Amino acid sequence: MVLAQTWLVGLDWGTSSLRAFRIGANGGVLERREGPWGILAVEGGDFESRLRQFVGDWLAAAPLAPVLASGMVTSRQGWVEVPYLPCPAGIGELAAALHPLRLADGRILHFVPGLACRQAGDAPEVMRGEETQIAGALASGPTSCLFVLPGTHSKWAEVENGRVQRFSTFMTGELYALLCRHSILGRGMAGEAFQASAFEEGVRAGHAPGKATGGLLHRLFGVRTRGLAGELAPEAAASFLSGLLIGSEIREAEGMYSTGRAVDLIGSFALATRYGRAFALLGRPSTIWPEDLAARGHFALARAAGLVG
Amino acid sequence: MVLAQTWLVGLDWGTSSLRAFRIGANGGVLERREGPWGILAVEGGDFESRLRQFVGDWLAAAPLAPVLASGMVTSRQGWVEVPYLPCPAGIGELAAALHPLRLADGRILHFVPGLACRQAGDAPEVMRGEETQIAGALASGPTSCLFVLPGTHSKWAEVENGRVQRFSTFMTGELYALLCRHSILGRGMAGEAFQASAFEEGVRAGHAPGKATGGLLHRLFGVRTRGLAGELAPEAAASFLSGLLIGSEIREAEGMYSTGRAVDLIGSFALATRYGRAFALLGRPSTIWPEDLAARGHFALARAAGLVG
Repeated sequence: MVLAQTWLVGLDWGTSSLRAFRIGANGGVLERREGPWGILAVEGGDFESRLRQFVGDWLAAAPLAPVLASGMVTSRQGWVEVPYLPCPAGIGELAAALHPLRLADGRILHFVPGLACRQAGDAPEVMRGEETQIAGALASGPTSCLFVLPGTHSKWAEVENGRVQRFSTFMTGELYALLCRHSILGRGMAGEAFQASAFEEGVRAGHAPGKATGGLLHRLFGVRTRGLAGELAPEAAASFLSGLLIGSEIREAEGMYSTGRAVDLIGSFALATRYGRAFALLGRPSTIWPEDLAARGHFALARAAGLVG
Repeated sequence: MVLAQTWLVGLDWGTSSLRAFRIGANGGVLERREGPWGILAVEGGDFESRLRQFVGDWLAAAPLAPVLASGMVTSRQGWVEVPYLPCPAGIGELAAALHPLRLADGRILHFVPGLACRQAGDAPEVMRGEETQIAGALASGPTSCLFVLPGTHSKWAEVENGRVQRFSTFMTGELYALLCRHSILGRGMAGEAFQASAFEEGVRAGHAPGKATGGLLHRLFGVRTRGLAGELAPEAAASFLSGLLIGSEIREAEGMYSTGRAVDLIGSFALATRYGRAFALLGRPSTIWPEDLAARGHFALARAAGLVG
């Protein structure tokens, strides 16, 4: 078997998982691997050994291919702490700030820095990993858009002139997991299978204007009382909660980012689709990007840095 | 030793704890006991045995004293499920709806029903236990007030003409505990000792108008990023989070209940004081009620029902 040539190896190395991409001449993913070796699971902090175990064969077969790594691997708990790059920043700024590390065999590993920004009257904002996915999307042309990256810590990022101007984080995904697993709301749930109608009802409840019906602290308790009153089946409660949180996130973000524009969704297809459904319900179009944007970002940054032709 | 005569035994029987009050002629608490025998910890659902173990001596020494029980003991998971009483309801309605249960020895135990209400466009609301504390406060005179009962599930209750007209629940306390113990925010904390300045900073951040700085889902993440940026010490993070949540609760509730009136705080002194500090910071006076309001409520309801003279 003849393998297509490796032009680049990209690593998306997060807190709980490690994903690797073997990338070809046109930036396409030739092969991908994923494992539970997030930075917190690397024994003794020996990242280089983990890297060799994971993609040593790829590296040996393509000794000249550059290697890029993005994600929490550049945090204080990671391999090398790389300072955040301030916004505004786009492909050019990120490529110019790649942080090199020489491995034992002399090969250079290039870390992609995360981004930071600060808006007046707000807490600082940081991201590590999402900037590479955004770079992957920007590489295909758009210069002005609003990205939404759902996840444990959902991010909204505004791009103008091809550069991320500012972004904000929402604890939506983590709160959903906490409430399902550890709260009184979870006790009233039977599974987390997706139920579209309960989800949409939750989106409407979470997105509704405040005042008379309060905000999130109050509305969350409604998941329980609706169940007690027989208005929400145990099988539907998790979907309702998911909708309630996503609807709340969208409402919050609408105060911070223009509501007049379409949204570009980046993330796992299942979660992006869920957000897309919520946006559609609220009358707003959204575009769902393919899942391999991190690899596209690695390629775009490597090219902008002159590491690949 | 001569014990003052027992006129009434009151039980505040909740999900996680059981409190008992031996109450004298004027409604004062002669003796109190507290133990970790909430309704979920009663083996085999044998509530009567648990009652005898806990206050059998009191009952034997005062065979004619009535016994009242309030709290989650009247829920589906409790001893006897007692239907909620609809609002508006005050001491008179609650006393008329006491639910009797004959014990093995013929003695009658009187359960206090919980309250329910429903506001337009909102989920149903329920309480079990708080109505008795509110009755205890109302017994000393006020007929029009706004009660705030901080706790795992914080409640705001509006009283007019001596009757609870409507109320709303906020998941503030449970969310605080979840976030400290299970979330990424907890990882950045060193203890939960109260720090006034961090708490007040949190109240301001949580109470600030939304729009540009988002709502709770976004602001929660600021606890982490402020820590990462060195703006919030690990020792202060829990107090900041507590303030952020309480400030958010107050902001939400202000959309639902008149902001023009003083607040009556019912709950543990430590938590009521924390809320009182938040209200003061926001320019709103508050009254902190004594902690034994449940016993006062038991006495007021027993008297209104003609069970004590």
